[in-house]
Amino acid sequence: MLVTLTTDFGLSSRYVAQLKGVLYSRAPGVTVVDLSHEVPPQDIAAAARLLEAAAPYWPAGTVHLVVVDPGVGADRPIVVIEALGQRFVGPDNGLFGWLDGQTDSIRTLEPQEIQPAGDSHTFHGRDLMAPAAALLLTGTPVAELGPPHGCLTMLPQQDGPTAGDDRIEGRVVEVDRYGNLITNIGANLLEDAPRDERLRVTLGEHETFGLWRTYAENPPQTLVALVSSGGMVEMALVNGNAAEMLAAGVGDAVCLDWTARD
Amino acid sequence: MLVTLTTDFGLSSRYVAQLKGVLYSRAPGVTVVDLSHEVPPQDIAAAARLLEAAAPYWPAGTVHLVVVDPGVGADRPIVVIEALGQRFVGPDNGLFGWLDGQTDSIRTLEPQEIQPAGDSHTFHGRDLMAPAAALLLTGTPVAELGPPHGCLTMLPQQDGPTAGDDRIEGRVVEVDRYGNLITNIGANLLEDAPRDERLRVTLGEHETFGLWRTYAENPPQTLVALVSSGGMVEMALVNGNAAEMLAAGVGDAVCLDWTARD
Amino acid sequence: MLVTLTTDFGLSSRYVAQLKGVLYSRAPGVTVVDLSHEVPPQDIAAAARLLEAAAPYWPAGTVHLVVVDPGVGADRPIVVIEALGQRFVGPDNGLFGWLDGQTDSIRTLEPQEIQPAGDSHTFHGRDLMAPAAALLLTGTPVAELGPPHGCLTMLPQQDGPTAGDDRIEGRVVEVDRYGNLITNIGANLLEDAPRDERLRVTLGEHETFGLWRTYAENPPQTLVALVSSGGMVEMALVNGNAAEMLAAGVGDAVCLDWTARD
Repeated sequence: MLVTLTTDFGLSSRYVAQLKGVLYSRAPGVTVVDLSHEVPPQDIAAAARLLEAAAPYWPAGTVHLVVVDPGVGADRPIVVIEALGQRFVGPDNGLFGWLDGQTDSIRTLEPQEIQPAGDSHTFHGRDLMAPAAALLLTGTPVAELGPPHGCLTMLPQQDGPTAGDDRIEGRVVEVDRYGNLITNIGANLLEDAPRDERLRVTLGEHETFGLWRTYAENPPQTLVALVSSGGMVEMALVNGNAAEMLAAGVGDAVCLDWTARD
Repeated sequence: MLVTLTTDFGLSSRYVAQLKGVLYSRAPGVTVVDLSHEVPPQDIAAAARLLEAAAPYWPAGTVHLVVVDPGVGADRPIVVIEALGQRFVGPDNGLFGWLDGQTDSIRTLEPQEIQPAGDSHTFHGRDLMAPAAALLLTGTPVAELGPPHGCLTMLPQQDGPTAGDDRIEGRVVEVDRYGNLITNIGANLLEDAPRDERLRVTLGEHETFGLWRTYAENPPQTLVALVSSGGMVEMALVNGNAAEMLAAGVGDAVCLDWTARD
Repeated sequence: MLVTLTTDFGLSSRYVAQLKGVLYSRAPGVTVVDLSHEVPPQDIAAAARLLEAAAPYWPAGTVHLVVVDPGVGADRPIVVIEALGQRFVGPDNGLFGWLDGQTDSIRTLEPQEIQPAGDSHTFHGRDLMAPAAALLLTGTPVAELGPPHGCLTMLPQQDGPTAGDDRIEGRVVEVDRYGNLITNIGANLLEDAPRDERLRVTLGEHETFGLWRTYAENPPQTLVALVSSGGMVEMALVNGNAAEMLAAGVGDAVCLDWTARD
């Protein structure tokens, strides 16, 4: 019985302390794992990106409880989803749009199917979603938690990268703790591009040549481009912080261009 | 076997790493859950507030180990408490004053009843309290850990809210990660007050009218008042950060006043 | 089945979320415990210090997975170590130098002995080390994960304290969350020194006399020296923050000198 938590509550908040209490009370013996409680407040897209990156590595049967819920108490429904052999519980506000086309079942949580943990209008994570997750963990099938749900809410479409014959333009979508700049340019777009010094990667006034396999092939403080562990083009400063050195961040344009092979 | 930890050590400190090692060594199979290690250094009142908010949601039998211990090594006793169907271990320095009147048993920890994990004078959390918690988790009754203890130490009384016929004055006691301003004014004090626009909520030069059910009933960036998930009057900025917008924080006066019903 | 994690990924990163997914997938029922994910980026020495302080408190059989790996993808080997009755997995880049002379077995991880979780060149923690840890947790002996390894890589030797007849010079090596200044001067060096006011402890222009047993023996805001819970000389400000008050930090010189006993 494995349940992960992804919220914007702050790790040390009373909200997390209460949520976990409900889970341990209602699903004795459960293993609760924090994915993140440091999602930027109300940043649904950030939570969705984290889940999308992590879920493929988790075992079948895992329940993912996701509470980034600026619309709590309004009419946004809570959904219970079966997908990837796993289960997902949270508000249908875009958090789960990335699962579109991969779901086996989507249900609208029906509060009378569960025993709420409280009657607040501002903390459905504790009062409705955690009890629903606990029911899933203790054997209740998804289908018993409510009626079939329509389409999942999608997040506003982000501009994808644009690819030409000898260039691709994208942007930085994430900066990790090392200051690595991860772009929205998938390595699969580079099939026709050279990976050696004929490939130029540009961010503002900064440029680097070639796609390296790993950080350690170049001396410290070299600006390099490589393919991230998630399969995206990434700019990094060897043993340093590229985001600081380049004064770059999320949203900045990154351009790849190359001379065609002979 | 469930033990929660609340400390001011910092999550990633060696102190937490050692404390957990002692628990896993002495209570094999235990589940250790972090409530918070980010209590402000030596802030006993903050730890007490977190525990008081969280404990009601935890299952019977849970052991709560609480180490905010500026008086370590001095003559403050360590207590082991049975209350709310749960157990509490920590220094008797005010951390547990909120349990006054709800306890079934209070014992003074007698170091010779346990096998200390070390002989430091500055880290009784690791050397005395964690071993005591491990004994509780593995079946030792509270009563075997030491003699009966006198009254629990109370924290200095905080000014409560003052209520008049048509007004209540209180103050902000907590700011959460969203910037919501949670006051010490319990919703139960509002029985005679209207909840519609006849009720005015004032903080400094800022005011808002009525008590709403939830955040999402108003447009983004609206200042609203509502009842928090803990039952207290709270001021919030819809999809925003009230603490930043109002430049407000803990201690600021909040006033409710109203026109009597016709 | 107990595995601890020490990384520089950041607690809420996708990297931790993926690493844990691999462990729970491959070692069902495992207990995963975060020691720290807040090691300063690429700070191998800081991770080594944390592990060295924590490991003695953990039970036999524990697996410690340590991923601070600036050389990922280069030719630094990954090692699997048996020592202290426990197991350690991570890059051989100095992280484990402190185990030198205490190991029962050291093996070079042979990727074909495990089923990698991915084929990235930049995240061997997820793709190689976590699968190796999972094998250890599910019963594979250390010796089956690869051939015998040579000597462990040692970190560059730090200057130790220098001891004279009536003085010892050392430096601050760690500042904890309270602002306590922990030095590299072990209490064992003080056998011939007095512990009363004849002993002077100096940091820059600041001085204090005697070694106290605990913080609470002096009034708030007193600068004191004492022996830390790890056995090192430590300077602290009672109920305050010595690092802030003295504007001191890691690397600062600390000097003990004394008048010989009569």
